[in-house]
Amino acid sequence: MRELQNDLKVKRECVDKALKDFVRITFPEELYRAARHLIDSGGKRLRPILLLLAAEAVNPDIDLTDILPAAVAIELVHNFTLVHDDIMDEDVTRHGIETVHVKWGIPQALIAGDTLYAKAFEVLSYTKTNSENMVKCLRLLAKTCVDICIGQWLDIRFENDKQVSEQEYIEMVENKTAVIYAAAAAMGGILAGAKEEEIRALWDLGIAVGIGFQIRDDILDIITPFEILGKDRGSDLVEGKMTLIVIHALHHGVKLDIKPDITEEGIQEAVQILQNAGSIGYAMTRATELINSGKSKLSILKDSDVKRELLELADYMIEREY
Amino acid sequence: MRELQNDLKVKRECVDKALKDFVRITFPEELYRAARHLIDSGGKRLRPILLLLAAEAVNPDIDLTDILPAAVAIELVHNFTLVHDDIMDEDVTRHGIETVHVKWGIPQALIAGDTLYAKAFEVLSYTKTNSENMVKCLRLLAKTCVDICIGQWLDIRFENDKQVSEQEYIEMVENKTAVIYAAAAAMGGILAGAKEEEIRALWDLGIAVGIGFQIRDDILDIITPFEILGKDRGSDLVEGKMTLIVIHALHHGVKLDIKPDITEEGIQEAVQILQNAGSIGYAMTRATELINSGKSKLSILKDSDVKRELLELADYMIEREY
Repeated sequence: MRELQNDLKVKRECVDKALKDFVRITFPEELYRAARHLIDSGGKRLRPILLLLAAEAVNPDIDLTDILPAAVAIELVHNFTLVHDDIMDEDVTRHGIETVHVKWGIPQALIAGDTLYAKAFEVLSYTKTNSENMVKCLRLLAKTCVDICIGQWLDIRFENDKQVSEQEYIEMVENKTAVIYAAAAAMGGILAGAKEEEIRALWDLGIAVGIGFQIRDDILDIITPFEILGKDRGSDLVEGKMTLIVIHALHHGVKLDIKPDITEEGIQEAVQILQNAGSIGYAMTRATELINSGKSKLSILKDSDVKRELLELADYMIEREY
Repeated sequence: MRELQNDLKVKRECVDKALKDFVRITFPEELYRAARHLIDSGGKRLRPILLLLAAEAVNPDIDLTDILPAAVAIELVHNFTLVHDDIMDEDVTRHGIETVHVKWGIPQALIAGDTLYAKAFEVLSYTKTNSENMVKCLRLLAKTCVDICIGQWLDIRFENDKQVSEQEYIEMVENKTAVIYAAAAAMGGILAGAKEEEIRALWDLGIAVGIGFQIRDDILDIITPFEILGKDRGSDLVEGKMTLIVIHALHHGVKLDIKPDITEEGIQEAVQILQNAGSIGYAMTRATELINSGKSKLSILKDSDVKRELLELADYMIEREY
């Protein structure tokens, strides 16, 4: 029987190899080094893996090497957003290493991100599929990139805005984080020849998984120390990012007084306040509800080992420790 | 008989209307306003027009509305590069108005540029053509975006580097400016069903036209006052940008001493020095040679009114006054 953790490892290695093959260090080498910086620093490759699993769940006989370029395209889009987001958020570390703009400079990081963006669409064009599917995937990926921009725009606009509602937050996260998961799952379905309603179900699963992932991320940001997370604990709080946790707290009269120069003890204290207000627990409950609702959509697919793995992957999104 | 200037006007209006239709101001309105800021401030739309003319030169009966989305995609890519380049160069005005990052902020301009980038690929997917051509255009446009990034990377690296050779400069400009013209012409050919060698000739014309355009741009930057150009005269000199003019001057022992706080009189003096050294004339001669070489490639195409217009357009690139 297939094991999720083993399958994740095998697929991650496949994706890692393909990333190296498709984004080679050529002239001008330093540009490609900057573009590859975060990619090479690791990553769980959950988005491309979701694409591959979704395709297998629809058609167990699909040749994954045919559709690997589409999976790589998804990971490249994700990495382009990381590089540009780090510029905008002025973050200095990610995955425990320097961010691209800190190591190379802001103009250089901007170009490195733009290069990954272009590479994503170039690599997509190498997917082996019929041309109709290719056009569908192209349009889906492009629209997804527009949505990500909208999400990032709202994320910045919401900073330090204490009026943001839970619904507005969910809408922001849906765009910023979830659509790329949804696009991955849906593209896997398209490339495997799924029916319209199956593609829709995979999209919905992706949205649920993506929002769940982000809520879990927000939780981990405030409860996990640097050594495990690779970035400063509580960085969202310090940056004034709106998260489900903070929104819940604000709506329950909690006063958080966080200055940019807050100490580790100050963060500790803020976390305790959020814990006591039930805000962290509330966020976890909402994440679980979303994941369960997303999983229920998969009833449209035939039962199989791969489908079971997809459902496990959905759970993993909100259970992971980093 | 068709008249180039009249045809340019008609096609520009078509492209302008399509740009409005494809990039609508929807939620979040301010993001789309930022994305549309430079587009709405005007522009000659030479790149999309080149695509349309190239298509007509290959197939006079082509329905231009079918391929208008591809032309719009080219203009969107161009505009995304303007927004990001202005951030990198810290330019405060373009087309006589504030740049996007000055009006909205750097993170916002970064996202506005990213949005145009995504929109370009989305709009490309609306082109009415067979799927094989679509994949060709997708790959070509994506590779072109990679090349533009390489060109911009080199442009920044060359700043204030007095060792840059003419060949390195041409290579930089080919990537930064010319490939998008080449892609436009080649895509027009592809969509009109051109043979491989015709597509190659159109590509070569585009490269020549693009480099010629950039050299003319460099000349105009130092000889044209703000009222006509819409940006500060001599801004390239002040930023330490390497241009064919400066490279020629440096190779002929000319000493240019330009500080960031240089006065209008100082610029005037520098221009006179470059004039006396024959550097401006040299740049113009090289541009003319390139354009003539590009035009000669078109001998592969059947003579027609449109072909004559293409040749006239090539000349216009280096004769224009702004």
